[in-house]
Amino acid sequence: MVEKYNLESLQLTMRVIAGKWKIQIILELMKGKKRFNELERATSGITPKVLIRELKDLEKTGIVNREVLKTALPAVEYSLTPAGTNLQPVLNKMQKWAKIQGQFFHLKGS
Amino acid sequence: MVEKYNLESLQLTMRVIAGKWKIQIILELMKGKKRFNELERATSGITPKVLIRELKDLEKTGIVNREVLKTALPAVEYSLTPAGTNLQPVLNKMQKWAKIQGQFFHLKGS
Repeated sequence: MVEKYNLESLQLTMRVIAGKWKIQIILELMKGKKRFNELERATSGITPKVLIRELKDLEKTGIVNREVLKTALPAVEYSLTPAGTNLQPVLNKMQKWAKIQGQFFHLKGS
Repeated sequence: MVEKYNLESLQLTMRVIAGKWKIQIILELMKGKKRFNELERATSGITPKVLIRELKDLEKTGIVNREVLKTALPAVEYSLTPAGTNLQPVLNKMQKWAKIQGQFFHLKGS
């Protein structure tokens, strides 16, 4: 059944997860709340400046929640919002597609 | 159930559909085979040069099939490969996510 697609909806989802780092950050936060330095260590190759930018964008699009902890030393914790968690079915299908088509894709060159 | 994600698989799928035009072209081809000028008319705002580039990339990644027709006047027809058609479940989930989360997203600014 060919679903009736709405280009704006699809572009909205793409906007939220596009780019080199967003999916990697979302995957880390799917494992649970993380502090900035935990995210930085877990996201190999990212710089603090870029991580700050990406987290701000993910916060702006309603994917990530930023909480300032009331601890002795000021600390910030990041977590997925419900909208962020609800990306799982999208990521599941993306992964499934890649597993099936991926080997063909590699034959055609990257 | 949190699916065990493979970052490379997810990045592979993103690579194939990322960018301003690819999803729009894929949606058009989901309606059936198209000639270049049909695609150009249907993809509002795209230039021939950009459409050629995007189609070449979609062909390279195994999403689009390019067929030279044996007609009096040389003509080329584009269609989705099975890998292209198999993107439907990904697009379905992306659209579903946007419909649910979308209104929240707009509240936060684009």
